[in-house]
Amino acid sequence: MSVRQMNFWGWGWADEAEAEDPDADLKLARSLAETYGVADITPLSRPRLEDFDIPASPLKPPKALDAICCTDDYERLIHSLGKSFADLAHAAQRKIAHFTDMVAFPENEQQVKDLIDWAGHHNVAVIPFGGGSTVCGGVDPDVGDSYDGVLTINLRRLDKVLEVDRSSRAARVQGGVLGPDLEAQLKEHGYTLRHFPQSFEFSTLGGWIATRSGGHYASLYTHIDDFVENIRLVSPAGVTESRRLPGSGAGPSPDRMIIGSEGIMGIITEAWMRVQDRPVHRASVPVLFHDFYEAAEAVRAISQSWLFPSNCRLIDAQEAAGAAGGKHSMMVLGFESADHPVDAWIDRALELVSDHGGVFDRSVLKQAESNKAGAAGQWRNSFMRAPYARTRGVACGAIGDTFETANTWDRFEEFHRTVTEEMRDVIARVTGHPGRITCRFTHIYPDGPAPYFTYGGIGSTSGMVDQWREIKSASMEIVARCGGTVTHHHAVGKDHRPGYERQVEPLFRSALQAAKSRFDPPGVMNPGVLIDPLDRDVGQTGVMK
Amino acid sequence: MSVRQMNFWGWGWADEAEAEDPDADLKLARSLAETYGVADITPLSRPRLEDFDIPASPLKPPKALDAICCTDDYERLIHSLGKSFADLAHAAQRKIAHFTDMVAFPENEQQVKDLIDWAGHHNVAVIPFGGGSTVCGGVDPDVGDSYDGVLTINLRRLDKVLEVDRSSRAARVQGGVLGPDLEAQLKEHGYTLRHFPQSFEFSTLGGWIATRSGGHYASLYTHIDDFVENIRLVSPAGVTESRRLPGSGAGPSPDRMIIGSEGIMGIITEAWMRVQDRPVHRASVPVLFHDFYEAAEAVRAISQSWLFPSNCRLIDAQEAAGAAGGKHSMMVLGFESADHPVDAWIDRALELVSDHGGVFDRSVLKQAESNKAGAAGQWRNSFMRAPYARTRGVACGAIGDTFETANTWDRFEEFHRTVTEEMRDVIARVTGHPGRITCRFTHIYPDGPAPYFTYGGIGSTSGMVDQWREIKSASMEIVARCGGTVTHHHAVGKDHRPGYERQVEPLFRSALQAAKSRFDPPGVMNPGVLIDPLDRDVGQTGVMK
Repeated sequence: MSVRQMNFWGWGWADEAEAEDPDADLKLARSLAETYGVADITPLSRPRLEDFDIPASPLKPPKALDAICCTDDYERLIHSLGKSFADLAHAAQRKIAHFTDMVAFPENEQQVKDLIDWAGHHNVAVIPFGGGSTVCGGVDPDVGDSYDGVLTINLRRLDKVLEVDRSSRAARVQGGVLGPDLEAQLKEHGYTLRHFPQSFEFSTLGGWIATRSGGHYASLYTHIDDFVENIRLVSPAGVTESRRLPGSGAGPSPDRMIIGSEGIMGIITEAWMRVQDRPVHRASVPVLFHDFYEAAEAVRAISQSWLFPSNCRLIDAQEAAGAAGGKHSMMVLGFESADHPVDAWIDRALELVSDHGGVFDRSVLKQAESNKAGAAGQWRNSFMRAPYARTRGVACGAIGDTFETANTWDRFEEFHRTVTEEMRDVIARVTGHPGRITCRFTHIYPDGPAPYFTYGGIGSTSGMVDQWREIKSASMEIVARCGGTVTHHHAVGKDHRPGYERQVEPLFRSALQAAKSRFDPPGVMNPGVLIDPLDRDVGQTGVMK
Repeated sequence: MSVRQMNFWGWGWADEAEAEDPDADLKLARSLAETYGVADITPLSRPRLEDFDIPASPLKPPKALDAICCTDDYERLIHSLGKSFADLAHAAQRKIAHFTDMVAFPENEQQVKDLIDWAGHHNVAVIPFGGGSTVCGGVDPDVGDSYDGVLTINLRRLDKVLEVDRSSRAARVQGGVLGPDLEAQLKEHGYTLRHFPQSFEFSTLGGWIATRSGGHYASLYTHIDDFVENIRLVSPAGVTESRRLPGSGAGPSPDRMIIGSEGIMGIITEAWMRVQDRPVHRASVPVLFHDFYEAAEAVRAISQSWLFPSNCRLIDAQEAAGAAGGKHSMMVLGFESADHPVDAWIDRALELVSDHGGVFDRSVLKQAESNKAGAAGQWRNSFMRAPYARTRGVACGAIGDTFETANTWDRFEEFHRTVTEEMRDVIARVTGHPGRITCRFTHIYPDGPAPYFTYGGIGSTSGMVDQWREIKSASMEIVARCGGTVTHHHAVGKDHRPGYERQVEPLFRSALQAAKSRFDPPGVMNPGVLIDPLDRDVGQTGVMK
């Protein structure tokens, strides 16, 4: 089969990476050296398959599954990495410590079941693989010493919209479909899921559900969670499916036990999803503020108004500099509807915005057909390109990462100040050079915002992973200490476990572990992600190792 | 202490029941005999404490808890019953089979913990008791033979709003506060939770969370679930509290494992709740339809419009007869806001309504300050009085009950026809007389409605419990077979377990049982409700016994 391959050492497709100007890294190195006032930076060359010494696989697929299994070096390499800073840096440094032993590409649910059964009977760890865009070690094949091998299951062949219920406006969708492919299939029916995480091109429906992915809507339907009508799961204990229901009060929600389970219970093969009619009415406008905290108060007012904007991203002055000149924080405020004009909605939101010192150009509002134009559109484009930019920085030892969180409004201002100041200090201490940290809100709630911090600094191409680990650990410690969540929508994986364990009390994690033991009696599903399987020691995980 | 006592044999307060006209039952008996064309009905006399032979309690509280524990007959009697038809009928028939052995009234969380610890060490089953208004056996002291006693913990002294966060618009509230008391305390701060289940007077915040109670809002925030910011739980394994967060993606939601757990994990002592500003803008209007299914299509259109009405209750012609004459189905459509006039919202909703044949009087809309006036208000009053009416019917052998469900739109029309026709047949077969069944929507979703069925028939004062059981079993079987949920907001308790076990797959229930075993290692929390504790046989439960 001819399948477009992902780039293993960075964001995007392999062919796109190949086509990039080879001088770009050198240019970036010169620019970074100037910016940070450091001596010449020699960028690491782009890694190739042959740079890695991949040990022979200990696994041999059973005959019946042979045709869908692969122990090819390139596939094993691609599937051994996500897209965290450490993943990219390890690839650039040619220092990949663990490789998955086999990759399977099941074509149907029965094969998923057969693969999991085989793994359970042979003490083989199973890593579900969607688009591979995890930034927190969600597909890391380091599973400790108690397994006889690691099988990564790539779900990309389970990529169909199987059924559409026009009356209930819902669709039955396979878990392995990538964002653009899902939208293309839904479009044939006039629908859209409108779930557009930054990873949209390289993430799947099953992955979104397993990680509580954050999507397009800035308010109300912030996570994929609320669009899930039911889930079908293949686990070592069997195939199970929740009932398709618009709402229920029959005990704790079965779906909510699987949503966010990050592959530790089983593999999501299908879900009925609540889809949307395509929006036809839109209004969007950038709003500028002199003061970030005043702007945050405007967001708070909107978040408590029940107006539910589809977009209400507040971007601080530094991050919005390209679009807003660098002196103003920018709010991208937008409403959309498939049913009705949204004038009354945005008019009221703009009243609230004005009450809090926001300035906007009403004429832009009238022009805006969608938020693809103007200052807001400019920011949006850079948003979608950001993961590509990071890849190039890694080759030069530029440490760039993000962390996203949520906290209540009463704590926000102090939280933001503390995070910003302490992170600046941490980056300067760890790298020896001043760094930068910026903030935007990705999602908003009546009781608090979801701030998304982006930081950067200059490390060294040899020491950058340790430097990143120290900064990452600090960011988790600061967020946890100040009452935030360790992740709002990037998931826990292995990297966020220290923060997760501080945030979620032991009793709940113990209950989750017990629940997992029923879905996964052999304890083979995604070991070390989120929690450890019962009676298994998968070693130190994530950034703490 | 002088506390207003609940009426043990029916809805409401004991003093209200005392004050009722003693001839009312006789009048009702004559009216029922005429309606159903049966021979004279002799109503059962109102039960008194001395009618019951309550065995001596095997439990003696430990000295430190003596002051808050009680083995008084009247308290034991009140706390042995909920408000299901079977509860009321058993009281009327003087046939109460199981009594709780002791009732405790803890004044603080430490006492809740001490009580649970004591129970865990003495193999005593613990039944959390809020307002006692369960209609599905949620406080039933029949726990099988493996316990050495039953302790009911009444939470009514944990009744305070402890803290208000004005910035995040949230409040920290104790679990035992009753609806009216909660609203009175929030009102001092200008807030409201606006959670008004039919049981409002006799249900508590902790009970609402434990049972996924359905509230005021017809759309969007249908269950209490979405207003829960965090939960504090006392379990046999210890006290645990989730982090107060506006949103999170860190693993499966800890709160969602407790929400709907019906007391099997522990007792909810506190929760931070998202509260609301008091609405100041309202628009409400009754809309009439010739055809119920056409009206349902109008509801569907509104449910998919993202207009989010606070009220969109569709009431069939028979149930709306008092307000709408008996020939028309009536939709009570309403919008409310604390922030902005709702004209644009209701105007668009009324366009959708008109498109589907709905008729309304726009002048009523302009008058309506709230939905306390007019036809809608008339229906609302009868809604709040319905539980009182049922009490009187029981004395005459009138079998009246409700069951509430949810199903997707694609199945709705067939679902409604099947339920209605089969239930009519069942009632006629079981009672020997035609019965009636009516339907309204309590809540709506983009992918389906939550229909609430009310049925009635004439049974016999001696055989009515068996008759009710047969009808109840049939209703669960029909709903489950036709794809609905066995409960949308009344909870599972013991009575809905047969339907729950059909609806929720064994693997998930097994995982829930394993999770429970971590919160409740001795297996003493509310045995037999929702699921059985691990390694305990609590016997046949609910309607199936």
